[in-house]
Amino acid sequence: MSAKADSPQKNARHRVERTKVRAHYDHATVHAIFDAGMIAHVGFCSVGQPFVIPMLYARDGHTLVLHGSVASRLMNQLATGIAACVSVTHVDGLVIARSHFNHSMNYRSVVAFGRATLVSDVDEKAQALARFVDALIPGRASESRPADRTELAATHVLRFAIEDASAKIRSGDVKDDAADLGLSHWAGVIPQRTLYGSAEPAHDLALDAPLPASVRALLENKGAAR
Amino acid sequence: MSAKADSPQKNARHRVERTKVRAHYDHATVHAIFDAGMIAHVGFCSVGQPFVIPMLYARDGHTLVLHGSVASRLMNQLATGIAACVSVTHVDGLVIARSHFNHSMNYRSVVAFGRATLVSDVDEKAQALARFVDALIPGRASESRPADRTELAATHVLRFAIEDASAKIRSGDVKDDAADLGLSHWAGVIPQRTLYGSAEPAHDLALDAPLPASVRALLENKGAAR
Repeated sequence: MSAKADSPQKNARHRVERTKVRAHYDHATVHAIFDAGMIAHVGFCSVGQPFVIPMLYARDGHTLVLHGSVASRLMNQLATGIAACVSVTHVDGLVIARSHFNHSMNYRSVVAFGRATLVSDVDEKAQALARFVDALIPGRASESRPADRTELAATHVLRFAIEDASAKIRSGDVKDDAADLGLSHWAGVIPQRTLYGSAEPAHDLALDAPLPASVRALLENKGAAR
Repeated sequence: MSAKADSPQKNARHRVERTKVRAHYDHATVHAIFDAGMIAHVGFCSVGQPFVIPMLYARDGHTLVLHGSVASRLMNQLATGIAACVSVTHVDGLVIARSHFNHSMNYRSVVAFGRATLVSDVDEKAQALARFVDALIPGRASESRPADRTELAATHVLRFAIEDASAKIRSGDVKDDAADLGLSHWAGVIPQRTLYGSAEPAHDLALDAPLPASVRALLENKGAAR
């Protein structure tokens, strides 16, 4: 990746104007926030009306792969190449202050602007579907049946090219006003995490079917003890 | 609430066209999904360009309260009463199928269309800030200092009136193709939850300050054991 690509130019569309200390524009930060999620909120305009729709996504370089039914209005709108905006947010903690005003959240968010194009190559579509499965749960694509011709024909795959993007991150401690430090109110941060519960086998699964490696790894890394 | 309000008419903007079995339009379902979250993705159009920005929100009846700095471009754009779209999504589980194609997620999402208006009444603004604090962590508003005149003057509060909204919910088991049931691949659902870790007191907090009731209740209900 070139130095230019690592530190892209900022323009009015994606420049963060408020709390600039939280803003990041480098690709590594933007990509890491995308990689930590799987649901994006995708926005577009139709005759002045904004639409914001949750969609699964997978990152591939500096593009995002999206998919949906060939009958989906959303997919067909995006496939025309209209301007789109894709936003992903992770909440990392509740920031509990002595004053209402200084309550906040720790979070990582990214807002990306660009346009989508339809992927027509069948092999690329099949690879994209495998990528979605691995974005849902790493390692799972190789443990399940790839899409067949009928399934691929029923699916639109879009590649959203990120033209520019900005990330915002808040982390760390509460920032209370000096004048409030004498108050007796508690203050601090409550970390928030996404964790997974015990796997619930399908009703039609053989009773002795072992948990696959992908699920075992997920639960070892992010399993909830309750 | 009238029967009409409970079962609002559907129009093209918010009618769910794909997987209609997942669609819900009643206010109770829409409100419950809003109440389960605190971050919305808010979309609007500016000269054909869509913007999707994460924002804290709190529900108040069939409206959503939003807030931000009086210097925020986003707040000032929304305050002009342009068409806006607010979307909230909760992921409830990973649906792990025998085929790539049938992998899915269990989720609850809501997409609401409407317009925002600026709240000018000072008491209403103060109440809105208290509502945000309680949306972050229930019961916290009464444990911390309310906003003063200076803080209220620095804050725009918007009331987003929901004109129409649709919810989509997927829950329950994997739906694999009959032809795939003979494959040896594991299939099932991995529930996903948001949990909270141990409270991290502010660096400037008295060492013997007890955890307040709001934090204790949150950790009793949604505390992670790890």
